[in-house]
Amino acid sequence: MALDPQDKPLAALVAPDILDLLEENPGAVAAETEELHPADLADVAELIPREQVPAFLAALPPARAADVLEYLNDDLRSDLLEEIPTEQAAALVSQMTPDDRADALEEMDEDVADEIVSELPAEARAETERLLQYEPNTAGGLMTTEFVSVAQDMSVDQAFDSVRALARTGRREATYAIYATDSQGRLAGVLSLRELLAAQPGATIADVARTEVVSVSPATDRQEVARITANYDLIAVPVVSESRHLIGVVTVDDIIDVIEEEQTEDIQKMGGLEALDEPYTSISFWGMIRKRGVWLCLLFVGSFFTATAMEGFEDELSRALVLSLFIPLIVSSGGNSGSQATALIIRALSLGELTQKDWWRVALRELPTGLTLGALLGLFGVARVVLWQYLGLWDYGPHYWRIGLTVGTAVVAIVTLGSLAGAMLPFLLRRFGLDPASASAPFVATIVDVTGVLIYFGVALLLLSGTLL
Amino acid sequence: MALDPQDKPLAALVAPDILDLLEENPGAVAAETEELHPADLADVAELIPREQVPAFLAALPPARAADVLEYLNDDLRSDLLEEIPTEQAAALVSQMTPDDRADALEEMDEDVADEIVSELPAEARAETERLLQYEPNTAGGLMTTEFVSVAQDMSVDQAFDSVRALARTGRREATYAIYATDSQGRLAGVLSLRELLAAQPGATIADVARTEVVSVSPATDRQEVARITANYDLIAVPVVSESRHLIGVVTVDDIIDVIEEEQTEDIQKMGGLEALDEPYTSISFWGMIRKRGVWLCLLFVGSFFTATAMEGFEDELSRALVLSLFIPLIVSSGGNSGSQATALIIRALSLGELTQKDWWRVALRELPTGLTLGALLGLFGVARVVLWQYLGLWDYGPHYWRIGLTVGTAVVAIVTLGSLAGAMLPFLLRRFGLDPASASAPFVATIVDVTGVLIYFGVALLLLSGTLL
Repeated sequence: MALDPQDKPLAALVAPDILDLLEENPGAVAAETEELHPADLADVAELIPREQVPAFLAALPPARAADVLEYLNDDLRSDLLEEIPTEQAAALVSQMTPDDRADALEEMDEDVADEIVSELPAEARAETERLLQYEPNTAGGLMTTEFVSVAQDMSVDQAFDSVRALARTGRREATYAIYATDSQGRLAGVLSLRELLAAQPGATIADVARTEVVSVSPATDRQEVARITANYDLIAVPVVSESRHLIGVVTVDDIIDVIEEEQTEDIQKMGGLEALDEPYTSISFWGMIRKRGVWLCLLFVGSFFTATAMEGFEDELSRALVLSLFIPLIVSSGGNSGSQATALIIRALSLGELTQKDWWRVALRELPTGLTLGALLGLFGVARVVLWQYLGLWDYGPHYWRIGLTVGTAVVAIVTLGSLAGAMLPFLLRRFGLDPASASAPFVATIVDVTGVLIYFGVALLLLSGTLL
Repeated sequence: MALDPQDKPLAALVAPDILDLLEENPGAVAAETEELHPADLADVAELIPREQVPAFLAALPPARAADVLEYLNDDLRSDLLEEIPTEQAAALVSQMTPDDRADALEEMDEDVADEIVSELPAEARAETERLLQYEPNTAGGLMTTEFVSVAQDMSVDQAFDSVRALARTGRREATYAIYATDSQGRLAGVLSLRELLAAQPGATIADVARTEVVSVSPATDRQEVARITANYDLIAVPVVSESRHLIGVVTVDDIIDVIEEEQTEDIQKMGGLEALDEPYTSISFWGMIRKRGVWLCLLFVGSFFTATAMEGFEDELSRALVLSLFIPLIVSSGGNSGSQATALIIRALSLGELTQKDWWRVALRELPTGLTLGALLGLFGVARVVLWQYLGLWDYGPHYWRIGLTVGTAVVAIVTLGSLAGAMLPFLLRRFGLDPASASAPFVATIVDVTGVLIYFGVALLLLSGTLL
């Protein structure tokens, strides 16, 4: 998430000084930036001229530079790691936490990433290769392998000493929680460092650990991991193998990133384009055209059917040209009600308030909702025609009441249809394994447009034949 | 977040047993449910018949029942606390963490909440009254007042003993982080419990605490708190007064709820309705009609202008009826490109990738993007007319090439306009203090519809006068 300097004056304020230092006295950069958060240093790296970034990172101690890399935007990080010598890149990524290291390597050119991995110390290499096997969108792809676990039959004092010893090694295990394992090494409980601290001397870990431990498998989808985290107010989710051995931990900071990314995807898909997968500010011109153009063309071609439907009623149009005046008004009411329904259902599905099998319950709810909203708009529709006639704003001819009723009736039907179609499309997409968020407002509107034209002329034929038609 | 039983088989599995126990042996409920997570017990409470819920809560120890209340959906919690005797309600909420207690009281009927507050123990009452002063959507409204702080000149051993003593009192301070204060009691640093544990004996807190501590003020908007949390990978954000005294801590579990809520609001607003503020599954019928109907009516009335624009061209329509066939096709292309642009900009603004002053940069980017996308669709538009003519699917008369060019040219202009309007509307709304997410797809489409009609007929007059017009 690249923030703008306005929101984060710190990076913008210190960047010029750091640039000066880099030129005059690079050896002083480390000490001068010691007090800054690595997230801010990452912002500095994104602000300063691109060609200065390698020198900036080189001026920091490796562990510090690795911290900065963890906060850097993906593209810049990949570029940097690809351009510096392999040994240097390996030295940097070996200092990153295992999950961030795997993520960084996953984003890179595969050949370069392989070279870097081969240069890693044996333990880190094995760990990284293992993490890289998991799909990035699963718990396995998110988890870190540095966590703290103790045997549940240990005394709290022993456990405390071992945690302290581990903490003093300076490794950066996720100490959000301490996991208790049984004699077979399977996950059996969880306790916080604070609970360990509070435990009475003489107790065993089994006495104080909570056994109500929520866990996921490495294959669990990251959205499900996020939902579990939110539901149980967790700050870390343990990942267990089929034999219930603890193999990793997903920490809440990564969960927040998942939630943000998933939401960005949902919103972009709901806007009727492919998810950009990178910031608006950094995607290339042609990348943007592709992400938007594909859907735009599909929707445009979909609208051909609307034109064809109109052509089918050319005869009616030529006899009652007045009907054409209300077409945009009428079809857009269906698109709008469909857009509302689809946004509601996509969000409720994503929050887990609704599941696939609730589709009929939703249909039963949207039907009266659509009818009521349609009736409301229908009244406005009748009023539009009749009032304009009364006020002398337009002359719809002697049958203006019938025209008004045609518009009103069509709106009732189209708004009901729009609400239903908008609500059902996300379920339908999910049923076929597609993302419900692809049920964008434009998609729904395109479907409703063509049926809207058919409904409108159908109603017109019913109400106006013998008079205008 | 009410999850469906399908996603959470646990609550659905145990609910029948708990119901049986409640009837036969309520005294055993506490022991039998001891191993369940309070979030699951809250799901049980939401699953069992409404009239059994008070008995279920009464069967749990007060601290446990308070935990369950924290996870319960807002409406059910308010109802329960309002219907049980005030002393009982006070006993329950006094066991909740201060931030959740304040939130629960805020959601309730004000008179009942006041009565409950007056029954709280003095300390809890003062704390609650203080928290209730803050706006719910600010850091003050989110923070808890139970945190751990130590003087920075303390030795790590002293600090450790005092943290342990505090932990053993059984109070539920947020121990995500330990805050160090200077001699004036101002926030001066932060360290994790783990860092305290790892510190060498003899060191002082000032030696080990990080001074790069990110903090917010109680008035900071909750979205900004969430952004800071995500940016710095925090699990707690300290809230300081103007004098930099620590007055509370916002914890990451509340941040996740904020992110989820804000995104639900954004998505619903982008769908063209007011944010529901409660789940789709629990909002009342008329509540739903109101949230959707207001915008739907506004948009419908907005479309009157489209009808008026059409009326202005009735003369042209009567001479070249063929023009009416492409109106839905053409105006929807503008609405679709506008929907894409507005979704992109709303999200980029919300993530902080763009700020208000970037509007002209975005405009400069959307102009060529819109033109390129428009040119692409324009080609399709020309092809639609010319191909249909060639293939004998429809006869547009001798000037079909001109008609095709009219459609194509209009599409280029309208897609460009739609992209620009969709991108600028969020900036414009924010400029006037409104939520940019209100720039919904339907809103943009309605604006683009009327201009689309004007552009289409404008182009038609240019290209077709002397032939069809």
